[in-house]
Amino acid sequence: MRVPVADLRAAYEALARSRGADAEETELYAHGLLRADLRGHHTQGIGLAPYLDELFEAGVMHFGRTIETVRNSAATALLDGHSEAGHVVAARAMDMAIGKARETGIGLVTAKRSSDCGMVANYALQALDAGMIGIAMSTGPILVAPWGGRQAQFCTNPLALAVPAGAEEPIVIDMATSANSMGGVVLAARDGRKLDGIQVVDAEGRYTDEPLRVILDAMDRESRMAGALLPAGPKGFGMVLLVELLSALLSGERDWQSEEISDSSRDRAAFYSQTCIAISVEHFQAPDVFAAAADRMIRTLTASPAAEGFERVRLHGGGAAAREQDYRENGVLVRDEEWAMLETLLARRSAQA
Amino acid sequence: MRVPVADLRAAYEALARSRGADAEETELYAHGLLRADLRGHHTQGIGLAPYLDELFEAGVMHFGRTIETVRNSAATALLDGHSEAGHVVAARAMDMAIGKARETGIGLVTAKRSSDCGMVANYALQALDAGMIGIAMSTGPILVAPWGGRQAQFCTNPLALAVPAGAEEPIVIDMATSANSMGGVVLAARDGRKLDGIQVVDAEGRYTDEPLRVILDAMDRESRMAGALLPAGPKGFGMVLLVELLSALLSGERDWQSEEISDSSRDRAAFYSQTCIAISVEHFQAPDVFAAAADRMIRTLTASPAAEGFERVRLHGGGAAAREQDYRENGVLVRDEEWAMLETLLARRSAQA
Repeated sequence: MRVPVADLRAAYEALARSRGADAEETELYAHGLLRADLRGHHTQGIGLAPYLDELFEAGVMHFGRTIETVRNSAATALLDGHSEAGHVVAARAMDMAIGKARETGIGLVTAKRSSDCGMVANYALQALDAGMIGIAMSTGPILVAPWGGRQAQFCTNPLALAVPAGAEEPIVIDMATSANSMGGVVLAARDGRKLDGIQVVDAEGRYTDEPLRVILDAMDRESRMAGALLPAGPKGFGMVLLVELLSALLSGERDWQSEEISDSSRDRAAFYSQTCIAISVEHFQAPDVFAAAADRMIRTLTASPAAEGFERVRLHGGGAAAREQDYRENGVLVRDEEWAMLETLLARRSAQA
Repeated sequence: MRVPVADLRAAYEALARSRGADAEETELYAHGLLRADLRGHHTQGIGLAPYLDELFEAGVMHFGRTIETVRNSAATALLDGHSEAGHVVAARAMDMAIGKARETGIGLVTAKRSSDCGMVANYALQALDAGMIGIAMSTGPILVAPWGGRQAQFCTNPLALAVPAGAEEPIVIDMATSANSMGGVVLAARDGRKLDGIQVVDAEGRYTDEPLRVILDAMDRESRMAGALLPAGPKGFGMVLLVELLSALLSGERDWQSEEISDSSRDRAAFYSQTCIAISVEHFQAPDVFAAAADRMIRTLTASPAAEGFERVRLHGGGAAAREQDYRENGVLVRDEEWAMLETLLARRSAQA
């Protein structure tokens, strides 16, 4: 079904306010969820909202907390989110990184004791909006086994990179570093589809492409699992580790000693950290020269001949502008059951208010 | 066969000196090639040396050039290598990045007009030796098609990450961001093995796991190809792009406008850039606290139960210390044909001297 952008935004704002968000927090929260929908990442937008509300209910995330700057250097900082909403913590981290990059060329700000920040591309795009290269990554609920293993030890550890272009649509890479995202595996289970290759390990320790051997409740975005998600082979495991090391370990969010069950309804631990990096293009090249080269790169690649079985070469983030325009004009395309879940949640929250 | 470490080092030093290297250049070049052998990455050590000598012969790389600092900020810099040997350029870049990280928390130094730098892990390890997190990446010869495409547009774009630990062996991720390295595909072709999945595209644009459909001379480390290497799916393509954007595009090495054939014997263009990033742990946490957490992470993961069909969970860089000790005591295990190629090369170089 199609839902007008204004309705989705209003729903997210109402949810934020019902959890005590002030005007800035409401804006960051609603903007972050909506931008995920507009970019076609519904599992980080409308699909995520009910789960986030559960986290507020369980006291795992909050509005109104003071984000503390624990360490601060010319080009880096460490924040303690004190369990503030991840959308707010990560936006603050990238904002600081951008300020530092303006002065020194690069800024890296990592935050511990954050919470779920939704689509990490939001924060990479924040740097893009400031004319910079943005990198954002996050850790969270423990869902993914190490390659060769069977026991969940990592989050899906999403990573985003956005790079400015000129006239062309910028390259925006946004991916779970695991073989698939939790949302992707749950939707495959819901739709009765096989996964695109080996992406999960079942309770017996067998690697499989069958999501229903692992996902116990396909209507739950954060379903309990019998088994775990997997990285995409040894190289994919390297990418999961890269995010783990540069975010959860560097920030001190996770010390591999103590571990708290933060999602009690699913008996699942989570380590919420984010790392945001901004790189100031103008410290390296004239921005217009850089943008022109980026444009030529994008045009060369998208015009490059396709292989057998492919229609054309697609770049990450390509088509986002057209989709957003369509969604803004004709409403956001969402799954019926997800809009129903959001409406149920809204009714419950306003009844409680 | 086993070759004593001293013999390998002497061979690399002789090759460097025969190309006019001074003492520092000789040390960096020999150290970089030898460390690749000692870590079991022979394709970046003994397997690479004959190709590097070809690049010297062709005037693509040189010793004795002055590495120019084009832009310099508190936390970033842009270097112009003026075609100096990549082993020297990348070591200089990481050295500067470490100095900047000491002051500001992070340093990112990118170099254009470099040349082949061998194993990128060398530069990540350089940061590790300074107690820091190191990230290094490189671009080079055009070998890899975009995902969905069939025409080579990228290098294998290797990426390395090294993170300090305490008593445990540190995690050192070191990988071609393409599905396989050029060395890996050539060796599979040489040994008549199939590739581990779809890793190449043939001249007809068909994706395949058969290296001999693409590699024309399996005895040549940098064989001509009928077709191209491939990324590991859309996510793998994202990783190839990440290195491309943060190294070749950010440094200005590649403007996607002009392109020069730099390896005329194979009619192949190359864009040699490196980006080195150092992150100072102590700007975030007490280093001993960080190292203890890293140790616990490594112990937890390597003790984590294995999946069906796996012996145990392996971490990137694990076993490197034992291998190095074995190689130092008993000689480096190398392929007979590669030692023969190196001996032939040495004889030719000393005859020319």
